[in-house]
Amino acid sequence: MSSKPAIGFCGLGAMGFGMATHLVKSGYAVTGFDVWAPTLEKFAAAGGTPSSSLSDSAKDKAFYVCMVATAQQAQDAIFGAGGILEGLPNGATLYLCSTVPSAYAQGVEKELKERGRGDVYFVDAPVSGGAIRAADGTLSIMAGASDAAFEKGRFLLEEMSAPSKLFVVKGGVGAGSNMKMVHQVLAAIHILAVSESFGFAARLGLNGKEVREAVVGSQAWSWMFENRSVRTLSEDYFPGASAVTIVLKDAGIITSMGRLLNFPLPLCSITEQVYFSGVDRGFGPNDDAGLVRLWTSDPVSSIQNSFSEEDKKAKLKLVADLLIGIHLCAAAESLAFAKHVGIPLAQMYELVVEAAGGSAIFKEYATKMIPILEGKGGDTSVPESFFDGLKKAVQEAQNVKCPLYLGNGALSLLLQTGKAPSLKSLLGLYTSV
Amino acid sequence: MSSKPAIGFCGLGAMGFGMATHLVKSGYAVTGFDVWAPTLEKFAAAGGTPSSSLSDSAKDKAFYVCMVATAQQAQDAIFGAGGILEGLPNGATLYLCSTVPSAYAQGVEKELKERGRGDVYFVDAPVSGGAIRAADGTLSIMAGASDAAFEKGRFLLEEMSAPSKLFVVKGGVGAGSNMKMVHQVLAAIHILAVSESFGFAARLGLNGKEVREAVVGSQAWSWMFENRSVRTLSEDYFPGASAVTIVLKDAGIITSMGRLLNFPLPLCSITEQVYFSGVDRGFGPNDDAGLVRLWTSDPVSSIQNSFSEEDKKAKLKLVADLLIGIHLCAAAESLAFAKHVGIPLAQMYELVVEAAGGSAIFKEYATKMIPILEGKGGDTSVPESFFDGLKKAVQEAQNVKCPLYLGNGALSLLLQTGKAPSLKSLLGLYTSV
Repeated sequence: MSSKPAIGFCGLGAMGFGMATHLVKSGYAVTGFDVWAPTLEKFAAAGGTPSSSLSDSAKDKAFYVCMVATAQQAQDAIFGAGGILEGLPNGATLYLCSTVPSAYAQGVEKELKERGRGDVYFVDAPVSGGAIRAADGTLSIMAGASDAAFEKGRFLLEEMSAPSKLFVVKGGVGAGSNMKMVHQVLAAIHILAVSESFGFAARLGLNGKEVREAVVGSQAWSWMFENRSVRTLSEDYFPGASAVTIVLKDAGIITSMGRLLNFPLPLCSITEQVYFSGVDRGFGPNDDAGLVRLWTSDPVSSIQNSFSEEDKKAKLKLVADLLIGIHLCAAAESLAFAKHVGIPLAQMYELVVEAAGGSAIFKEYATKMIPILEGKGGDTSVPESFFDGLKKAVQEAQNVKCPLYLGNGALSLLLQTGKAPSLKSLLGLYTSV
Repeated sequence: MSSKPAIGFCGLGAMGFGMATHLVKSGYAVTGFDVWAPTLEKFAAAGGTPSSSLSDSAKDKAFYVCMVATAQQAQDAIFGAGGILEGLPNGATLYLCSTVPSAYAQGVEKELKERGRGDVYFVDAPVSGGAIRAADGTLSIMAGASDAAFEKGRFLLEEMSAPSKLFVVKGGVGAGSNMKMVHQVLAAIHILAVSESFGFAARLGLNGKEVREAVVGSQAWSWMFENRSVRTLSEDYFPGASAVTIVLKDAGIITSMGRLLNFPLPLCSITEQVYFSGVDRGFGPNDDAGLVRLWTSDPVSSIQNSFSEEDKKAKLKLVADLLIGIHLCAAAESLAFAKHVGIPLAQMYELVVEAAGGSAIFKEYATKMIPILEGKGGDTSVPESFFDGLKKAVQEAQNVKCPLYLGNGALSLLLQTGKAPSLKSLLGLYTSV
């Protein structure tokens, strides 16, 4: 065990704490820094070495993991007075695991050189998977770096990720962040879709438990739905596991990049606006599953109904069709964006189907969308039932005066493609195919 | 005066009461019906003859105006037991002035024939202009009917409308409702744009009075902005002049028709969803100018700031650019939809520029969009400043976490057109041009 190198770590939030303590459990001496003192005490109790300053936490550490919340925080932590760079020894490897714009990650590499610290091996390595997998060392990691940096630093990425979930993305620094970004297109949209579908179901008089039962395992399934719906049903929002503000930050990175690159992200933009309205309502620090409160203040698991089996089935189908329509358009939006920023689509597929952005629809239809995006043609048909089903869901929502931000956004896209939407015409709304 | 025919009238709401009492003032004997008794008393006080049933109100009336709120109410009023048709004499002229789907208006004509009342001259004649113009007899009226029905019934439309604001739309019954519908695309979007722009301005720290001063008379002007902003500044929402539920009903007609015809209406769909969220917040019966409360609970006219003139100008420009971007896309959405439903575009232009759907942008750019939609080519350029300005507004809104539902919807459309949006590419998102 003593052969394992000492690690510096900053940003001991829900994810960072799990990652750092996992490294401790794996036998590394980890020196950690966080601005919030109670976390440092907890970290010490878990076997870590708390540090009172960033530069101290980096002193003599050949490997340093930065897991702060935002690019701005990373900038201050790395380059600020008394920051990481002041302590980091020559030839150290620095991992930036925060979700940041790819342009920012590339900016860090450039600034290191400009400051005469071209000796630092820099790895752009955002992560995904949540606090539990962070603590288990089974995260998904999307990494971009020079070959030399990977040679030095790959072992630590392997420590923190599951064997099949370390994605080394071609393209150097920035490619990891871009992969994370296009994954988060799905994550952000799917998270809102969970609340929108439960909210719609509540307006239809369906009990949330019935909804979960109908969706999980069906074509309407998404990883987010299965994961978040547990908290939706128990109203476990305070704080729950993942705050609205976290996914909102990611949505902001996505839409900012869209504006920068002149790339349309209609569903993700809608999602971001609804998140803002959630923050306005005070839901920002709460679990994102709590966004269902934009639709109903009653617990969705307490709703009683006496529908016939047939009626209930018809209503549940509306909810499932809503999700299917959203997931289909989200798949198109994320894949077209991935193509635009140069992400290898096959690798993205491999990542998504096993990650938080996954859905049954993505699994099935991304395999058809990717050849179209790569100019190889192939099956481009969209089942008519998807289009009809989404239309009916939107119509019924109108009848019960239920806002369906994403449902209408997805339907607008399908309607833009003409009378008989195809995967090709849908993708063609984003990019030339 | 005695030569003027007796008129039957039902639906004495804000608009209907004004229309009916205007006819009374013009020397007609008007027999009116409404389900709400206090209104009937008021009507009697204004010189009308109240009636206690629909069939009585129609008895011996050669001309009958139906101004109820919805198609469902019209159906019950006209065809229900004890309804208008039971009283209406042979060869009477029946005006349906409610805003209804064109398909419904056509259905009335058909049902009249099916019920053996092909003798009734039916005029599809929705109106626009608000309660004050209703009472002045200076409404805009969009009328579709057979030549024979117009010959019989045109005089009464002239009584209720301003001389230049009676639009006889080619296409028979349904054409009037379609014209109203495409006009309401603009009205619905512009109404929400008023609140969105004031809400954004409030987040930027601008006082509402400064905003109104900057917008009215500028390129960001809309009829709705000038009209609604008076009530926004005085918080005159209870009930104000036009409830959210009224424009929401129109938005519902529009988006339902879009689904029926497979025509995309992304901005109007977004608008409808935000209206639903306003209804959820309890704002439905309040004036639609009160939707600004989705953004801020403080009175926008009480906001204090100490910005430099330069800073203030820059912030006001963001708000104006937001409106310009929305108005441009709303113009495209309404005109493309009008083409799709067969509305004569030149006539629509004439109507809109003098009506509640008007905007400075519509006035200038519709003249360029119409030739493109008619396949005649022409100037298709969009000032780069519109695109840049909208992007900057959306970026700043993201910085201050302010939802811009329409701003982002419009930007998504412009981004869909590629790097350099043109009017042609914008219209091409809706229809082949």
